Amino acid sequence: MRDVLERLAAGELSVAAAEAELAGYATTDAGRFDAARETRRGVPEAVLAEGKTPAEVGALAATAVETAGRALVTRADGERRAAVRAAMAEEHPDADVRVDERARVVVAHAPAFEPPALDATVGLVSGGTSDAAALGEADAVATEMGARTERVEDVGVASIARLLDRVDGLRACDVVVVAAGREGALPTVVAGLLDAPVIGLPVSTGYGHGGRGEAAMLGMLQSCTVLSAVNVDAGFVAGAQAGLIARRIAAAREG
Amino acid sequence: MRDVLERLAAGELSVAAAEAELAGYATTDAGRFDAARETRRGVPEAVLAEGKTPAEVGALAATAVETAGRALVTRADGERRAAVRAAMAEEHPDADVRVDERARVVVAHAPAFEPPALDATVGLVSGGTSDAAALGEADAVATEMGARTERVEDVGVASIARLLDRVDGLRACDVVVVAAGREGALPTVVAGLLDAPVIGLPVSTGYGHGGRGEAAMLGMLQSCTVLSAVNVDAGFVAGAQAGLIARRIAAAREG
Amino acid sequence: MRDVLERLAAGELSVAAAEAELAGYATTDAGRFDAARETRRGVPEAVLAEGKTPAEVGALAATAVETAGRALVTRADGERRAAVRAAMAEEHPDADVRVDERARVVVAHAPAFEPPALDATVGLVSGGTSDAAALGEADAVATEMGARTERVEDVGVASIARLLDRVDGLRACDVVVVAAGREGALPTVVAGLLDAPVIGLPVSTGYGHGGRGEAAMLGMLQSCTVLSAVNVDAGFVAGAQAGLIARRIAAAREG
Amino acid sequence: MRDVLERLAAGELSVAAAEAELAGYATTDAGRFDAARETRRGVPEAVLAEGKTPAEVGALAATAVETAGRALVTRADGERRAAVRAAMAEEHPDADVRVDERARVVVAHAPAFEPPALDATVGLVSGGTSDAAALGEADAVATEMGARTERVEDVGVASIARLLDRVDGLRACDVVVVAAGREGALPTVVAGLLDAPVIGLPVSTGYGHGGRGEAAMLGMLQSCTVLSAVNVDAGFVAGAQAGLIARRIAAAREG
Amino acid sequence: MRDVLERLAAGELSVAAAEAELAGYATTDAGRFDAARETRRGVPEAVLAEGKTPAEVGALAATAVETAGRALVTRADGERRAAVRAAMAEEHPDADVRVDERARVVVAHAPAFEPPALDATVGLVSGGTSDAAALGEADAVATEMGARTERVEDVGVASIARLLDRVDGLRACDVVVVAAGREGALPTVVAGLLDAPVIGLPVSTGYGHGGRGEAAMLGMLQSCTVLSAVNVDAGFVAGAQAGLIARRIAAAREG
Amino acid sequence: MRDVLERLAAGELSVAAAEAELAGYATTDAGRFDAARETRRGVPEAVLAEGKTPAEVGALAATAVETAGRALVTRADGERRAAVRAAMAEEHPDADVRVDERARVVVAHAPAFEPPALDATVGLVSGGTSDAAALGEADAVATEMGARTERVEDVGVASIARLLDRVDGLRACDVVVVAAGREGALPTVVAGLLDAPVIGLPVSTGYGHGGRGEAAMLGMLQSCTVLSAVNVDAGFVAGAQAGLIARRIAAAREG
Amino acid sequence: MRDVLERLAAGELSVAAAEAELAGYATTDAGRFDAARETRRGVPEAVLAEGKTPAEVGALAATAVETAGRALVTRADGERRAAVRAAMAEEHPDADVRVDERARVVVAHAPAFEPPALDATVGLVSGGTSDAAALGEADAVATEMGARTERVEDVGVASIARLLDRVDGLRACDVVVVAAGREGALPTVVAGLLDAPVIGLPVSTGYGHGGRGEAAMLGMLQSCTVLSAVNVDAGFVAGAQAGLIARRIAAAREG
Amino acid sequence: MRDVLERLAAGELSVAAAEAELAGYATTDAGRFDAARETRRGVPEAVLAEGKTPAEVGALAATAVETAGRALVTRADGERRAAVRAAMAEEHPDADVRVDERARVVVAHAPAFEPPALDATVGLVSGGTSDAAALGEADAVATEMGARTERVEDVGVASIARLLDRVDGLRACDVVVVAAGREGALPTVVAGLLDAPVIGLPVSTGYGHGGRGEAAMLGMLQSCTVLSAVNVDAGFVAGAQAGLIARRIAAAREG
Repeated sequence: MRDVLERLAAGELSVAAAEAELAGYATTDAGRFDAARETRRGVPEAVLAEGKTPAEVGALAATAVETAGRALVTRADGERRAAVRAAMAEEHPDADVRVDERARVVVAHAPAFEPPALDATVGLVSGGTSDAAALGEADAVATEMGARTERVEDVGVASIARLLDRVDGLRACDVVVVAAGREGALPTVVAGLLDAPVIGLPVSTGYGHGGRGEAAMLGMLQSCTVLSAVNVDAGFVAGAQAGLIARRIAAAREG
Repeated sequence: MRDVLERLAAGELSVAAAEAELAGYATTDAGRFDAARETRRGVPEAVLAEGKTPAEVGALAATAVETAGRALVTRADGERRAAVRAAMAEEHPDADVRVDERARVVVAHAPAFEPPALDATVGLVSGGTSDAAALGEADAVATEMGARTERVEDVGVASIARLLDRVDGLRACDVVVVAAGREGALPTVVAGLLDAPVIGLPVSTGYGHGGRGEAAMLGMLQSCTVLSAVNVDAGFVAGAQAGLIARRIAAAREG
Repeated sequence: MRDVLERLAAGELSVAAAEAELAGYATTDAGRFDAARETRRGVPEAVLAEGKTPAEVGALAATAVETAGRALVTRADGERRAAVRAAMAEEHPDADVRVDERARVVVAHAPAFEPPALDATVGLVSGGTSDAAALGEADAVATEMGARTERVEDVGVASIARLLDRVDGLRACDVVVVAAGREGALPTVVAGLLDAPVIGLPVSTGYGHGGRGEAAMLGMLQSCTVLSAVNVDAGFVAGAQAGLIARRIAAAREG
Repeated sequence: MRDVLERLAAGELSVAAAEAELAGYATTDAGRFDAARETRRGVPEAVLAEGKTPAEVGALAATAVETAGRALVTRADGERRAAVRAAMAEEHPDADVRVDERARVVVAHAPAFEPPALDATVGLVSGGTSDAAALGEADAVATEMGARTERVEDVGVASIARLLDRVDGLRACDVVVVAAGREGALPTVVAGLLDAPVIGLPVSTGYGHGGRGEAAMLGMLQSCTVLSAVNVDAGFVAGAQAGLIARRIAAAREG
Repeated sequence: MRDVLERLAAGELSVAAAEAELAGYATTDAGRFDAARETRRGVPEAVLAEGKTPAEVGALAATAVETAGRALVTRADGERRAAVRAAMAEEHPDADVRVDERARVVVAHAPAFEPPALDATVGLVSGGTSDAAALGEADAVATEMGARTERVEDVGVASIARLLDRVDGLRACDVVVVAAGREGALPTVVAGLLDAPVIGLPVSTGYGHGGRGEAAMLGMLQSCTVLSAVNVDAGFVAGAQAGLIARRIAAAREG
Repeated sequence: MRDVLERLAAGELSVAAAEAELAGYATTDAGRFDAARETRRGVPEAVLAEGKTPAEVGALAATAVETAGRALVTRADGERRAAVRAAMAEEHPDADVRVDERARVVVAHAPAFEPPALDATVGLVSGGTSDAAALGEADAVATEMGARTERVEDVGVASIARLLDRVDGLRACDVVVVAAGREGALPTVVAGLLDAPVIGLPVSTGYGHGGRGEAAMLGMLQSCTVLSAVNVDAGFVAGAQAGLIARRIAAAREG
Repeated sequence: MRDVLERLAAGELSVAAAEAELAGYATTDAGRFDAARETRRGVPEAVLAEGKTPAEVGALAATAVETAGRALVTRADGERRAAVRAAMAEEHPDADVRVDERARVVVAHAPAFEPPALDATVGLVSGGTSDAAALGEADAVATEMGARTERVEDVGVASIARLLDRVDGLRACDVVVVAAGREGALPTVVAGLLDAPVIGLPVSTGYGHGGRGEAAMLGMLQSCTVLSAVNVDAGFVAGAQAGLIARRIAAAREG
Repeated sequence: MRDVLERLAAGELSVAAAEAELAGYATTDAGRFDAARETRRGVPEAVLAEGKTPAEVGALAATAVETAGRALVTRADGERRAAVRAAMAEEHPDADVRVDERARVVVAHAPAFEPPALDATVGLVSGGTSDAAALGEADAVATEMGARTERVEDVGVASIARLLDRVDGLRACDVVVVAAGREGALPTVVAGLLDAPVIGLPVSTGYGHGGRGEAAMLGMLQSCTVLSAVNVDAGFVAGAQAGLIARRIAAAREG
């Protein structure tokens, strides 16, 4: 602890970074950013933009870069993505900022941040363009955890031939996240074609009775092929669970 | 009416048959058998064995043969199937009685009964042996309505190749009933491969959360391919709806 | 494939149309339009306007006309209907554009598009003005598939005499879609009066407990007359399923 | 109170009857019989046989006759009906005991009991034989409250003509209870044909999704005709509510 | 019919009034106003303002006055109430227009309209100010049907003494509507204190789990006192059902 | 630990008691009895008889007496109550065994067991005889925790006067458990009459829609008076929570 | 009563205060403020700002201060908090007004108001910043009832070590409210570590399936440690129930 | 294929084994055993005993040993376990048969069967003895897939210290299955303490509202730590998913 305090006194550490090292989290007016969790499982601590003001999202993202070297902002609409860009331009002008509009994700890396790199691949499959946001969120977190990702999109169960054409591209994957809305059958079909573990990601793209993802969620829980599932629209959780599996596999590869 | 009464007086008609012609239904101690419905849409009036005593089932089946020339008994366990056989042996010893144990169905035809014959084919598809009872019920009613039936079983979505191998056998069908439990995805996949209308038949073969057919039911209602559905385990309804479509098509073929 | 490429090189085919023929779908900034599905079952690939920006809806409709010769836009409010008109005026000024405000549907045909014509009639029944949007959607898709349609509206079960007055008009129909909200009993009553197959279309016009279409949906699944059903407000699916049945019947009539 | 105690001391009153007059209820080993409620609204205090042992049912019925002059036993299977008969034979051999097997109801009157008689009629309508138990329960309680009852059965919405044939018989009724299972549409149709108040009684005779009376219950709550409803299988409540209305009307007739 | 046409030709009847007499309803650009229903049961045909534009509400109200002599507009917010006033000022300047803001109801009577008057009283009880809208809707319809009404408000079960103080005012009522949100216990308690029939009206004033009226609805269906219920927030239905009962009682009083 | 082992070696301690002291629980063939929990909060560790064989229940009860000096067996039917008696007769013949049949509870105390005694009173209120089992379970656990208990039964909201007559008996209670089935309104009414904290205990005594305690549960969660609740039929939890509050109050009284 | 009227006539009492003393509540244009409830159980009568206009909230708060000496306004967003401040500035400029933005609560005390002070402490625990609003509401009401409060925040079950570090701070509490969203496990873990009674407060901070607080609510009802619960987001109820317990304990301490 | 037929003709292969090689499954009177699935993903094809007769279970187990060299029978009660033993004694007397009563699992290996062995460990954690059946099922399938397993039981969240004492034993695991009933919080807490992927297995051991595993299921889907989940009581699926992950890790270790 003395070391941290000395570096803070010497101006080598910001107050937020010192607080993060000592208390495990940094406090800002916009809330608290919990850097400690990240070190435990390698899962980046995301800033969930939904339900926060643009100013809060920008401030939390800046704190994240300051204390963890990286920010991962999820469920950010255009206004909140702009707020993150602005906060970065002001407080971390040399950060590397990438935006994925379809996934509604912003990632920012401080120049000194060294992203992890795992020798393992996460497959990401979806049935339609409406599943792109959830799948992109999964992609972003798995990528930030260091996994390679391989995407296969628009292969819904209503056009089974198109799926069969593209399934070979998934055979090299170590774990596969499959997103699906409506009746949610795609993970079942994909898991029947592969021998890697499959994580089902139900998406709230249905309509009418059971249309807020309930049908897809139940369909994955009832799957007649072995798979596990996450909650509706939980792209972050699916990607992070895939990332945890990839970390174990990469560690095994490294011996 | 006078004609009916004269034939009754002359002993050409039983009391039950006379009542059926005049009132539209025949009354027995075991309940009422509604023969009139059958003539309206060609859908045989079934005796639902579940929830009735074996004696009631036997009595109603005998009344059905007497008034409609035919009995179709559904959801009959071993004891009730035996009761129907016994009732037939006693009251209609010359009836043609066929039993389908897997489908839990008994069909009896009086010697004079002329079954309809339609120039149209109903396809019947299922994913597993646990769907056999519901599918068999659908088969029985479609057959009694005069349709040819074509069955393709054990082609679940977890083994998509096996389904693709057998789908050609369905291309000649005019309408297809697809039964599925668990996640209920099979009708969606089949409808994506055929151009005939598909009727989804959800089956209560799941388990845990959503396992009494809710997942399958919702999956069919949310299907991303065009299809219509019936209630959970409603094999009779699915088969009869397919039969009604087959009747229209056969009539069109006859010109 | 060479033929397609030669026609593209010769300027006889647009890039989008060429992509549609080769890949089965055309990509636009507004998303993907999947023309291949249309050829499989004759069901037009609709542009669902709900949840898309007016610009996206306009762009997808234009792409649809370009690649499939036709656009069917559903669930379009005033702003989105205007966007489709504007996109047509600019990109396909000679297209035939028809708008049904009650049904919230826009249909556009390229001059060269030859709509199918089937010798079969789809009946369309509803109980009240609040069911008009769902029924109109069903009407549009059945019409686009080439069926004749016959509408009988405002014949709710609360005024049974009015329904009986008008049921004769439905006797010539080959298949009947019946839309109903609230308690959803109309398909049951109609199916009891006709011998054509009936497709129940529950509508979300109820209120309070069970009022988002659940009561109507359950009522149709529990119907004591034979019928099949589609999801709540799924006018497109009901119309397309009726269209598939009409196609079979028309084909049989043609011999 | 002194009067009661004097009559008890004089042997003119049993202990149970004295307790009932003083405390409002009588205690037995089988539980408590609450006679006071009966006097408030004229609704007989029923002994619900379901969930009690035959001995308890018999004992409670005997106490009811002793303290209230009458017993109304509901939901009694064969064994419990026999127990009531036996208890009556032993303790109130001169009571008038009537059993309705279909309704699963036993009614016993002490010789001195003077049943009420109201100048008002309760109509009782049902769609099928499976609704008979609930309807019979309603009939029994309305009858015990003194109303005349008029039954019209087997007039389901699937055979609307049969209902129309018989609706005239209901026009003289002051209030009508309509029982229905499955989709529960019958009360809506009946209320559209009559000007008396209608009470919907949903029955748990459906199957699959929504089949434990939920569809019927929701259908009545969503009815597009004015009516009120009671809970699933609550024949007693429906009959008693009709009886309360009949009491008011009869009182008005008497001036 | 000839008579109607002659009066139309002679200018004694508007087109809408003629259409209403002949077809049972009048068509306007804003939809259809169904005058015939009103004559059947005496229940006024209401214009439900919710979900319609102010212009549509105004037009329908004007049509109602023209064809039925009266308009009853329910669930009208400020803008829609103003639209009704404006429509009346323009088309029926001599109509008697009354507005109840709390109940969100507007009633308009043409000068020639003779409101019914029944010798019967409907009680109206509620537990809190949040139940006022639903109760006011019930009051309006019962009043329009001719019943006298008697209101007792702010007597929730949490303050049972206040209810007991005021219950005597209800003893003269012939039928009582009791509105309650939250746990919905008030109808049960009130029915235990009165001998008139009670109609429970659940209100969506709860919060959290079960808070959209489900708890109140279920509470009334499970009531341990005899009563019937209507759907959540269905003030119109509760008032109309009470009105139907009042009509029967008043008719009996008249002999 | 050494002390425990020496007492075990010296035969002063049974193996089970030694295991309980060292590991916190004792293992038997019938499962594990967790004595440590009891010392933490003073809540006796109950043996839940439901779902266990009579032999298992007897063995666990004997182990409880051996390791904790006391056994509290809940939800025990006649056969399981007999098994506990038999196990006690054999293994702890000098234990004090008390059985409450209505509550389905057996309590056994070893001769050396000194039950706690708290200077605090728990009130226990219910509306009907069907709530007696749940209330008795609450009574047993509160009593075993040392609280005095005061019961007021048969005071349902349908007979509000009877409740008011008896509420004074509750004014001295420090905390009150109120059990109710059906619509579950009793805790709300009682809490409105008292100033002690009230714990709602919903009971599964309803029927039909919402009848497995859902209506009562939701009613307590929606209560318009301040109270907290436990799960359906959770008499043990309600009694123990009341006991914990009584412990705090008694400790405060002792200063 | 005469005394109140004399003081009113003498100008010593406002009309509202006089009405409050006589009728138990004061009527304003904005609704009714029920001062009598407060005196019964010591629970302050809160003004629920949600669903009221800013003007109504301001007026009710002013009436509360006038009649009860204090206002507690809950669920007040920025606009409504400003309205309360403004109303106080105008009508009670000398009131002590405190605002808690996170809790969305405003408290105002008239100068003469003497807040209660209890010798008892309520613990308040939460897992994350998103639970702060509900917990703050609980804190405000417990504080207004006179209890000391002790808060422990950001100790979610995902970081169990942080919770264990801080649990000692809770050991002196007499009763503990634990707020939790998502899976709602925190109250269970906390109750396993303390011997004070625990009240679970589920918060609607989840997402997807079960995300509106259902998972947290069910988790607390199923807790394997003894605790009671309140409805989702019912911070007021949790705090008031804790306050009632604290009142009893403080009274016991005072002897 | 010729090779298979020649071996069959030569008596080297049974008919069932030949059918299994050619068709992918073997047919018996008791149903179909699908050996092909096993080879795809290494997941043994289990015989689900629940819902089958003892004779069917025995026959299917014998067929499994004959065609796949191994049988894994799940959810087998005593009678069905005995039937498997008997079938083995008769048809495969030299098979190695192991029974796990708590897990309700029977495993049989033919002498020639070489079980796989993976260099990877699956952790298995549960909170109470009632979770043992589901956890044992997971253990059996993971073991049959070749993984080492490590069990940590009786570490519920109500006794967090006991869990912390034992968590170190899980640090070497590559993937961890955590079973929990009631509120289902254990997987969340465990995942917060480990860096291996965690699979939540909800168990139906709750009671009352949400007690058939819904609370546990929702709790895992809402977990505030990263994890994926399977359906209620789906021990087989959880174990197989863990086995698939272990297979990938072991393969990586082998390089």
